Amino acid sequence: MAGKFITFEGPDGAGKTTVLKLVAEQLNEILGDQMILTREPGGNPISEQIRNIILDRKNTEMDVRTEALLYAAARRQHLVETILPALQSDKIVLCDRYVDSSIAYQGAGREIGEQEVADMNLFATGGLTPDLTLYFEVPVTVGLARIKQHRAADDVDRLDLEKQAFHDRVHSAYEKLAQENPERIRTIDATQPVEKVVNETLMILKQALNK
Amino acid sequence: MAGKFITFEGPDGAGKTTVLKLVAEQLNEILGDQMILTREPGGNPISEQIRNIILDRKNTEMDVRTEALLYAAARRQHLVETILPALQSDKIVLCDRYVDSSIAYQGAGREIGEQEVADMNLFATGGLTPDLTLYFEVPVTVGLARIKQHRAADDVDRLDLEKQAFHDRVHSAYEKLAQENPERIRTIDATQPVEKVVNETLMILKQALNK
Repeated sequence: MAGKFITFEGPDGAGKTTVLKLVAEQLNEILGDQMILTREPGGNPISEQIRNIILDRKNTEMDVRTEALLYAAARRQHLVETILPALQSDKIVLCDRYVDSSIAYQGAGREIGEQEVADMNLFATGGLTPDLTLYFEVPVTVGLARIKQHRAADDVDRLDLEKQAFHDRVHSAYEKLAQENPERIRTIDATQPVEKVVNETLMILKQALNK
Repeated sequence: MAGKFITFEGPDGAGKTTVLKLVAEQLNEILGDQMILTREPGGNPISEQIRNIILDRKNTEMDVRTEALLYAAARRQHLVETILPALQSDKIVLCDRYVDSSIAYQGAGREIGEQEVADMNLFATGGLTPDLTLYFEVPVTVGLARIKQHRAADDVDRLDLEKQAFHDRVHSAYEKLAQENPERIRTIDATQPVEKVVNETLMILKQALNK
């Protein structure tokens, strides 16, 4: 496969999704339809149905391993229906969250264990690892303050009901992943103003894509 | 945990579910509410929703690994909500299908690989293995003939649309599991008349339960 698989990671409130949208607009002028921007569940009906089960606030009794398996199932289907076909057509795939999110959120945040979640996700991905991952880093307190500021009270899903300790574990896991995978993961200081984060992101991407 | 976890396995058409119903009725006279009879998804809302996605005939594009992950997710939730609480209350749990079914159907039948499916299911079960498994064995041709005889044409789900080769692989996988786990798996000749199969099953169970 001649395409490039690039993922965007980071804790809630890092501004990742906003930055990714702005970056994709600018990259689109250079790459056109050679590029796709996607995120799980990615619009396929099966993954959307799985996502609905995960986020259903009535499902408060969901076991943490059930949740991790459902994320992996939705990931698999998104990979097969969207990511792999794009890579096989030599496209640049920009994906908002992938396996690192499950390692951080389910493995560390929900305390299943990072290695166990990583191993289980190997079953889902068949070992497909991103060529490059951009990790948008903000301290936990900054991320949480941004979430509170930007969301309406009724726009809170099950994941937001967790406590500070959960977010501390997620943050530490991301830091560890970045340290252990320096050849794959680039850390970006997401406390900077948005335009600076966007410029730094674009610079790294253009370099990686030789553009 | 002082309870006993007993599973019932076998290919389609082995008559397993019929036998299990008759056996449970008789065991119930001895054990009363010390026993529960269950099967995945087991009636909990989360697993039922997962099961609906798996069996939805519109979902013909479901990847085989997505399917295996969904079965494991439903299994996990059933384990946490039904099986573990019963075992912790010292009950005898009779369960119609468990991990062996995934190894046979997804691992061998759908050719993901038996070991890979077994490893991934370890994540779902946390290693909880049945104390005893009764494997109802029938040759593939007998099983398929029984399915055709007993089902109405419109009562066919996605799994029944597979070919003979699929059922051959499932059967071989069950045989291999039985050979490799002689201390756990007891094989019962399910080509015998139902009353004989029921009596043999009851004899093995009473022995295992010291009743």
